[in-house]
Amino acid sequence: MQTHFEQELAELKQKLLLMAGHAETAVREALQALLERDEQLARRVKENDSTIDRFEVEVDENAILLLAKAPLASNLRLIAVAMRISHNLERVGDEASKIAKRAAELAAEPPLRVPIQLQPLADRALALLKDSLDAFVNSDPAAARAVIPRDKEVDQLNKDISHTLTALMMSDSQSVPRALNLLVVSKSLERIADHGKNIAEEVVFLCEAEDIRHASRLASS
Amino acid sequence: MQTHFEQELAELKQKLLLMAGHAETAVREALQALLERDEQLARRVKENDSTIDRFEVEVDENAILLLAKAPLASNLRLIAVAMRISHNLERVGDEASKIAKRAAELAAEPPLRVPIQLQPLADRALALLKDSLDAFVNSDPAAARAVIPRDKEVDQLNKDISHTLTALMMSDSQSVPRALNLLVVSKSLERIADHGKNIAEEVVFLCEAEDIRHASRLASS
Repeated sequence: MQTHFEQELAELKQKLLLMAGHAETAVREALQALLERDEQLARRVKENDSTIDRFEVEVDENAILLLAKAPLASNLRLIAVAMRISHNLERVGDEASKIAKRAAELAAEPPLRVPIQLQPLADRALALLKDSLDAFVNSDPAAARAVIPRDKEVDQLNKDISHTLTALMMSDSQSVPRALNLLVVSKSLERIADHGKNIAEEVVFLCEAEDIRHASRLASS
Repeated sequence: MQTHFEQELAELKQKLLLMAGHAETAVREALQALLERDEQLARRVKENDSTIDRFEVEVDENAILLLAKAPLASNLRLIAVAMRISHNLERVGDEASKIAKRAAELAAEPPLRVPIQLQPLADRALALLKDSLDAFVNSDPAAARAVIPRDKEVDQLNKDISHTLTALMMSDSQSVPRALNLLVVSKSLERIADHGKNIAEEVVFLCEAEDIRHASRLASS
């Protein structure tokens, strides 16, 4: 049977997953607004960022109250990790807003002549974020470890896009303002993957610390 | 006489100020490396970022232990604010690293023909950060409130620099890679001011919540 404290802890985790859902949707819709030149949708994404910010405040408040009554050191660690994951998700929301802002600016401009592959970059960044959260939910350090090196692939995709855009700006001066907007978007997507990697590292930290604690408990018994 | 808990709380504040000193130095040196084309210094700034990261981990760990034994709700709030200030300072350190990275790249290139006023932007951003920390140390919500609107001035300086650099890229294609580096630096300085503003807002939150608590305590006595 769950204690009241365990139930509150489960609710905190649940709130974090709900927050993650909002952050993921924000990123998807921001990119959709960019690719479909949908200024309305871009504006909505920016407005909805306050929802994600509120989640962060709520997670922090709940976490602090739980910390004050946590019976075990392992609870403290889990709650601290939950707070750090929440900070990362809040920043994912910020990146979505940034993308939406650039999407709104670009919607009024003619498209660039050069194809820029933002969708595959976004898909990989979001998959990385999702898998890191799954690793958290399942307390699966092996899955978390497997996520970490994938951040390098996302970095490379962002670098490729940056090179393409830089070359374009040098060959076509009229493309400079639009290419700058797309540079920011590409960098934002790369940062979203960074936050996914941070979350995966938190999960490893959480699970390993528990392993160490378990090991020393076995040794002393 | 201070209790043991109060003493630990004072130590946490002290650690935060030490961390802030490191973050401020990192920003100053990163900009110095950029302006003086000093690649060695740029590399040192990047290496020293791990010191700031370690501070964040330590502040978090100490804060979590203190939360678990905080006797008053007002303690919880102060500790939570200390953790959030620490996150902001860690991100200031990240921005300093970013500036240093661009400084290292630019050190090998000829300077741009156009004067870009990064020093005044850096000075204002750092002054804003410093004043927000002073407001925290002195628990001075009026000083914290006075800091917040100054972020807009910094935003404007960054916008001016961005416009200058964008125009330069459009008129001189050879300047594009260097101008992109300076755009990133200018944006980083603007973000440092954002973190200062965040800290000022935390101080207002902290002091106002205490005021409210004091008021209700007086009312019920």
